[in-house]
Amino acid sequence: MARPYNFYAGPAAIPLPALQAVQSELLDYNGSGLSIMEVSHRGKDYDHVHEETIALVKELMGLDDRFHVLLLHGGASTQFAMVPMNFLPADGSADYILTGEWSKKALKEAKGLGKPRVAATTELEGGVFRAIPKQDQLDLDANAAYCHFTTNNTIFGTQFNTMPQTGDVPLVADMSSDILSRQIDPSPFGLIYAGAQKNLGPSGLALVVIRDDMVGKCKAGVPTMFSYKTHVDKNSLFNTPPCLAIYVMNKVLHWLKGEGGVDAIEKVNAEKAAIIYGAIDGSGGYYRNTIAPEDRSKMNIVFNLPSEELEKKFVKEGEAAGFIGIKGHRSVGGIRISAYNAAPLQAAKDVAVFMKEFCAKNG
Amino acid sequence: MARPYNFYAGPAAIPLPALQAVQSELLDYNGSGLSIMEVSHRGKDYDHVHEETIALVKELMGLDDRFHVLLLHGGASTQFAMVPMNFLPADGSADYILTGEWSKKALKEAKGLGKPRVAATTELEGGVFRAIPKQDQLDLDANAAYCHFTTNNTIFGTQFNTMPQTGDVPLVADMSSDILSRQIDPSPFGLIYAGAQKNLGPSGLALVVIRDDMVGKCKAGVPTMFSYKTHVDKNSLFNTPPCLAIYVMNKVLHWLKGEGGVDAIEKVNAEKAAIIYGAIDGSGGYYRNTIAPEDRSKMNIVFNLPSEELEKKFVKEGEAAGFIGIKGHRSVGGIRISAYNAAPLQAAKDVAVFMKEFCAKNG
Repeated sequence: MARPYNFYAGPAAIPLPALQAVQSELLDYNGSGLSIMEVSHRGKDYDHVHEETIALVKELMGLDDRFHVLLLHGGASTQFAMVPMNFLPADGSADYILTGEWSKKALKEAKGLGKPRVAATTELEGGVFRAIPKQDQLDLDANAAYCHFTTNNTIFGTQFNTMPQTGDVPLVADMSSDILSRQIDPSPFGLIYAGAQKNLGPSGLALVVIRDDMVGKCKAGVPTMFSYKTHVDKNSLFNTPPCLAIYVMNKVLHWLKGEGGVDAIEKVNAEKAAIIYGAIDGSGGYYRNTIAPEDRSKMNIVFNLPSEELEKKFVKEGEAAGFIGIKGHRSVGGIRISAYNAAPLQAAKDVAVFMKEFCAKNG
Repeated sequence: MARPYNFYAGPAAIPLPALQAVQSELLDYNGSGLSIMEVSHRGKDYDHVHEETIALVKELMGLDDRFHVLLLHGGASTQFAMVPMNFLPADGSADYILTGEWSKKALKEAKGLGKPRVAATTELEGGVFRAIPKQDQLDLDANAAYCHFTTNNTIFGTQFNTMPQTGDVPLVADMSSDILSRQIDPSPFGLIYAGAQKNLGPSGLALVVIRDDMVGKCKAGVPTMFSYKTHVDKNSLFNTPPCLAIYVMNKVLHWLKGEGGVDAIEKVNAEKAAIIYGAIDGSGGYYRNTIAPEDRSKMNIVFNLPSEELEKKFVKEGEAAGFIGIKGHRSVGGIRISAYNAAPLQAAKDVAVFMKEFCAKNG
């Protein structure tokens, strides 16, 4: 079967050249006669993958020597707990900015471990979020241990297009769904984490970037595997890392570098988003996205049709036309097109054409 | 290159038919046109993999309805912490049997969270272990919340060939390195865990089997991702599971079933171990393994040569002859042949021939 366009929200599309490289080496990595997944994590073949992956993250994200790159087990949900386990002081607080389900889940874990504050929330009745708070809407605590936020909201289709400014308080960000999709200045970030399964590779792996001053702040008494310090000290080799997922991520990063890196992919992502939002906004109200332009996500584009029935028809006919994974999140319904790095420009063009035709036929 | 015999201790050999199945489906799972690693964990393709993997574990381990099978992020090291986080009472204790490095690491995590007891240890001077304690050497606490032990010790080459008997106290076992290698009676086990990267599949995945009565005992207030109850309630789909690793494990379990299941592989494993121990014991003292026959591991066969220099030569010439991963653990040196399920009978025969020839040439 021809490969359809994969718009899943995560696990999500992986660039075909990365998959092809994995396939071609699957039985014999680097002339070893063995698969990369069946060699020691302390041997030279895996070691090369591990070190190169870390170096590629540093290069692609533009990280200087202040930052450590960790490759950890689990996804963002594990990080929701690890962040407060390591950084929420018993007698202090941390700020949380709520813009969707994932930031709420992060806050829930912090509440189980201490006394976090809500610095802002854009939650509406019914648990719906449609906006990113402006800088002047943030009620920031200058003594917060950190300020946590979610850079992109997969469910509600919003994204921080400018980062919150918190002065000396380190930013801690869940970038699961937009990491490496655009250039960011890493300086204000004490910690960045991302589940791999959107822009990086397969699920079962979390990328964590931690700034050196934060390592010294990791609390003592945290179980060994849940302390960031363990993984900084052992270069993510305290225990056997998720080698296969890291290896696939390595191939994805090679692909991204070959495409021109983050600067180049950011332009493609902006163009894809402009095409799809253009199809929404140009539909005369047939497709509806009520998010303010400055808060719209370039990764997850959500919209509604005039009725649920039409949305079902859209999903069904879209899938038949080769657009996979376009159903909105089960909690909110509607349509969601997730156009991560691996979604090609042509996918956006083709889905926009499909949208116009669907509207013309069913308008 | 021809595939060498893979004797790595973990990540370890994966059956070739499993790897071939993964390779052939890598770009197109089940006619979807997508790789299994790029589809939603809540869609029908991954759902089939997930449910079938759980069913295969139940079938191969002979688990009845009292047991839940969980597929979790991380490896055994994460479980070292999760076990006491969930089950070690603030005002109570748990027993730990120490037979090697891994059980010591498990105890360390419990000590950070409560007051575990050491029910037995076979540690010798210098941190070396050479034995499994006999039943009458166990100092058991009838009120322990659980009794933790490591069924097979990868570093020291020992194995519980009969399980400890603890009456009403549930056994909790780290079976990372011998799960599905032999038939066990699961009844006395409250919880079994295993990092996948020895007998099950790639690293980055832990198999957990939990008995129903233990689910009710999971402590409240544990971070969501570290509570077994979360994963029982959500069938290991609370968050995105390590889908790719689970998928490879699915292929490994299919292979094992095709080989005749655990009963059949147990016989092969016994035969492989007998051949290699035979080569050691028949070498007139050239190869030395001082572990009592009843405590010897059938998975990790460790031995020394007359000198470190000869051990280095053995490793070098062994690798050249196609035996990969035979160097002992960095903490103890010597030689280690890890003959997990995926190591074929012929590998044991061939390495035994190599051992005889090496001894004849270098004796």
